[in-house]
Order: sequence, then structure tokens, then C-alpha cells
Amino acid sequence: MPTKKLINDPKNIIEEMLEGVVRAHPGHIRQVPGSPRSVVAVNGPRQGKVGLVIGGGSGHEPTFLGFVGKGLADACAVGNVFASPPPDPIVECAKAASRGAGVLFMYGNYAGDVMNFDMAAEMAAMDDIEVRTVLTTDDVASAPLDQKSKRRGVAGNFFIFKIVGAACDKMWSFDECERVARKANDHTFTMGVALSPCSLPHTLKHNFEIGENEMEIGMGIHGEPGVAREPLRSADAVTDEIMDRIFTELPTREGGKVAVLVNSLGSTPLMELYVMNRRVHQRLAEKGIVVHATWVGNYCTSLEMAGASITLLALDEELTELLDHPCDCAMFRAG
Amino acid sequence: MPTKKLINDPKNIIEEMLEGVVRAHPGHIRQVPGSPRSVVAVNGPRQGKVGLVIGGGSGHEPTFLGFVGKGLADACAVGNVFASPPPDPIVECAKAASRGAGVLFMYGNYAGDVMNFDMAAEMAAMDDIEVRTVLTTDDVASAPLDQKSKRRGVAGNFFIFKIVGAACDKMWSFDECERVARKANDHTFTMGVALSPCSLPHTLKHNFEIGENEMEIGMGIHGEPGVAREPLRSADAVTDEIMDRIFTELPTREGGKVAVLVNSLGSTPLMELYVMNRRVHQRLAEKGIVVHATWVGNYCTSLEMAGASITLLALDEELTELLDHPCDCAMFRAG
Repeated sequence: MPTKKLINDPKNIIEEMLEGVVRAHPGHIRQVPGSPRSVVAVNGPRQGKVGLVIGGGSGHEPTFLGFVGKGLADACAVGNVFASPPPDPIVECAKAASRGAGVLFMYGNYAGDVMNFDMAAEMAAMDDIEVRTVLTTDDVASAPLDQKSKRRGVAGNFFIFKIVGAACDKMWSFDECERVARKANDHTFTMGVALSPCSLPHTLKHNFEIGENEMEIGMGIHGEPGVAREPLRSADAVTDEIMDRIFTELPTREGGKVAVLVNSLGSTPLMELYVMNRRVHQRLAEKGIVVHATWVGNYCTSLEMAGASITLLALDEELTELLDHPCDCAMFRAG
Repeated sequence: MPTKKLINDPKNIIEEMLEGVVRAHPGHIRQVPGSPRSVVAVNGPRQGKVGLVIGGGSGHEPTFLGFVGKGLADACAVGNVFASPPPDPIVECAKAASRGAGVLFMYGNYAGDVMNFDMAAEMAAMDDIEVRTVLTTDDVASAPLDQKSKRRGVAGNFFIFKIVGAACDKMWSFDECERVARKANDHTFTMGVALSPCSLPHTLKHNFEIGENEMEIGMGIHGEPGVAREPLRSADAVTDEIMDRIFTELPTREGGKVAVLVNSLGSTPLMELYVMNRRVHQRLAEKGIVVHATWVGNYCTSLEMAGASITLLALDEELTELLDHPCDCAMFRAG
């Protein structure tokens, strides 16, 4: 059975979504005149502050759009569903975010995004905007640790962007913002599990097929193959499988601190996420690891895909201070 | 195909969810010792303040649990999935919320909830806690306007609780809190559309069946029958059908103000909600009605049901001031 959707003509869906977004959040974001796919924070960019530009395909809301605002990202380039934005709206974001202190591009490591953001960086350079790029690669299931640069960026984006957005908001230098961006990415570990597919608005066809009693551990947020297709098991067993995998890389030891994100891929409800969160906390407590803060909900989705991801952020004093820094975005507020 | 769920033994699901909730939000909520189904705001109750107790069945998260916190509800009684809590945890909530100025019980108008909350009110009276009850009846599809007291409470709960929580937080008298509770309910109008069912954790069976190309306008949040089963139409057509129905009751005229809530019933993604929100704003603009504030997202869900609801709150100066009052809850923050 195809997914039923509340949509109009699918070829207008992103423009219609964006109209709904800016009408809902006029105090937080606006579209660049003449470049509607470039969404800018109303109170973000200011003189001498490093600009933070994020972006990528649509369909992962509130990623990326929802994280534009004071204390987080200054601008966001909006692609079609599961497709990178082209260079032009990215360049417009760079211009809108630039206040003479440099602009950081941060986005998940996907080939299309890398190509378009790199092209945009070259175009911005011709306008005398210095751009540096830090890719997010938090998905531990997407490549081995010794090939971390091949990993994809997924829900951990939320932690990484939040930390870098705080550094920019605190008026750190370009070098320091870039340094802490790489550090935040290196300290962030995500793994997901998919139970059922989503379908794209243009086709209404599932983006993958999976058996009635199966799950796929490590599947990507566009349906990229994971590490194991297995019979569906209990929430605790699934959580343990994910946590065991993350623990092989997490640098945090007894007495150390982490932040936790339990994220729905779309249709998995809060009830199930909180059951998983309980197990995440149990496992961390067993190891004597302290949870500094926890987020549970829809942070990086794949339309109505069923499943969840768990992200751990290994904290030190610097990352903790930045994570705790207030932000005020269209779809997220903290501090 | 039954819904796949990330759960353990379904008979423990509420206790496990609650453990995950209090571990995630220890700064906001706690369970009453010996009464784990009674969840209380850490910084809510205080001397001389009217207590606000909400509650109902689980499966609608973040309703009700997520709206416990300073500036909103003081306590929440937690039932099983789609089932009222029994009197005992409600009484414990009343005790925890009571600081000598009276306790308001507010919850959706469902027979089981009315029975249990009324019994709890009698039991609380024996402990010298004065309880008054205001039922929410915002679902315009659930009974005709001249039988408003028969209507059910749905997503509009969010607006109503928020306003009353603000009045309590501002230390208004018991009479005034009760008055504004009834007024907020009378000014709140919700109507929903369901596209596909959810399934209960205990059975994994759909709570209703619906054709591959059908929708049901006005279906309740437990699958109660709506007002029309029709072929699925475009987002704009569906939004218009809902808005036209709400406009027949909305007292707001040209130049007047409303607040808007576009709510997912569970698996309908933000992209679709924002497309609908765009149309809601268009329709209001056509009538010269001003949107004071907009919320879009998962506020009152039915597990992973697909569909959405639209709520309009007709604002005057008093309701606007209360709606804008800050609150800081486990799963929601404003102001």
C-alpha cells in the first residue's frame, strides 16, 4: 500500500513547504529576496561573527531548516526531497551569512552536497567571501572507523551544528570555529535502525522494501544500505545492538559525560523513543558514564520512515559549555 | 501489514516510557514516590498558586506528559494506551499540585476520564483539597455546536492548557483561573483528518481500517468515527474543508487575531504540515484575520496514525497575554 500524503502538486512541494515555514516563523527566518531556497536567520548574522551555513536535501525536517536562528545556523540552503541544493542558493546563503569574519559550510557528507557546496564555495570566493567546509560524518554504520571521512552525516548533525553555532555566536575566530567544528564531529556517534520505508512525494513509491518482521540496522536516512538486516527484536535488544556498536568508538570512560539524542526517523512515536531512551540511560549508568543532557523526538527524519537513531556526544568542558549555550531557532529552542 | 514497533513486553510499556521520560527530563519532572503514574513539575507548584492537573490516556505524546512544567501544568496523571488513568494517580497529582489555593482538573471530554477524574475529585475533597473541573471540548467534528458539552477534547488542549497554566503561574485566583479555562475552551476550535490507522502495542492490530485512497474527516484521536469518509484529496482541498467548517464557528472577524496549531496525528511529516499551514494562513489572510502565533508539529498524536488536525484559537487581549506567557516544560518551551 503506497503512503498517503497531504500534498498538492508534488513539483511545488518545496516552495509550498517554505511558504508555510516562513509564515509560521516570521520572527525567526526569512527567505532571501529572489532566492527562495535560501533561508536566513532574522537575528543571526552580525558584524565580525563567523557565518554558519548549513543545508541539504529536504524531507529530513526539522533538519536543516529548523536549526536556523540566533545561536545556531545563520542560513540554510534547501534542496529538493532527498537531493542536494544547487550552488546558487548556497552562494546566496553565504552572502547573507557573511559579515567579514568568514563563513563555515557544514552539512552531511553526501556526494551531491559536496559537489554543490564546493562549487558554491568557489563562487563565494569570487565575491571575496572566505569559505571553509567541515563535513559531518557521525553515522558509524556507514563506513569503518579508519575510513571516517567516508561516513555519512545523520542525526548527530543536530549536536554538531548546535556546538558550532554557539562558538560563532560567542564571536570565536574563524580558526577556532573550524577547530571546534571538527572536534564536535569527531566526538559525535550515531547509529540507526529502520523498520519501514517512506515514499517520495513525486512517486508515492517506497524508497526500499523490507519484510514484515524485519529491521535494518544502520540504514541511512535516504534508505542507504545498513550493516545488517535481521528479524525485528525487542526495543532493548535493538538499543543494546546500537549501543554496543557505539561503545566500540566512544572515547568517554567512567565518570565522563555525554549528551544523548534519541531520534525518530519519522513515524516512530515518542512512546517508543522514550522506551529506548530508558535503555540508553541504563547502559550508560552501567558504565558509570554521566548523561549531561538528553533530547528525544523528531530531529532528523526521513519523511514518514519508521525507525530511530541513537546519538552520543562525548563531552569535555569546552563542548559542554557550547552545547549549553542558548539558541532560538524556528523549530528548536534551548538554554 | 501490522505496524512494527520498537517495544519490549507491551504490559510494561507505560512504566518503561515513564522511566525514559524522567531520565530525559530530570530538571523538569519527577514521579510521585509510590505513585509512578503521577508526574509532577519540579518547579511548578508553589504556595498560594492554583494547581493545574491534566491527564488522560497515553499514546498522544507529547500530550499530556510533555506539558508539565513551570508556566503550564503542575501534574499529569498517566493512563494506559488510549485509556483513562484510574482515580488513585489522579488524587496523588491533586495532592502534589495543591498549595491551598485550589486545584483545577482539566482533560479531554471522554467518558472514562470523566468518571475517574470525578471520583478522584471526591477523594481529594476528603483531604480538604478543593477541586474544580473544566473539560476540553475543542473537537468541532465530534458533536453539533448546540451540544458543545458532548464534544471531545483533542489537539486544542495545548492552547487551553497553556492559557490556564499561565493564569495559574500569574497567581490568579481560583475563580479567575476557572473562568479563563472555560473561556479558552470556548475560543478553541479543532478539526482533523485521518489517512491511516495506528496499532496498539498490545495487539499490533490497526485501530480502524480505511481504503487505500480514502481519508476520514473529523476522525477522533482514538479512531472515533468522523463526519465524512471521502476520497483522499489535495492538501489544499482538505485544508479548505477543515477551515470552512471551523469558520462557521470562529467568532473572529476582519482585523481580529488568532493563534494557529497544525498538528500531526503521528506519522504525517513536517513537510506536509507546513504545506497545510501555508493554506491556513492564506485562508485567514483572505478574511483579514491576523495570525498572532503559529505552532506546527507533533502536539497531540495517536501513536503512528497518519493525518493532521488544524486548531484555531480566537484571541482577545486577555487570551493573547496568557498565550504569550513563558513556560518551560519537559517537551515544550515558549516565551
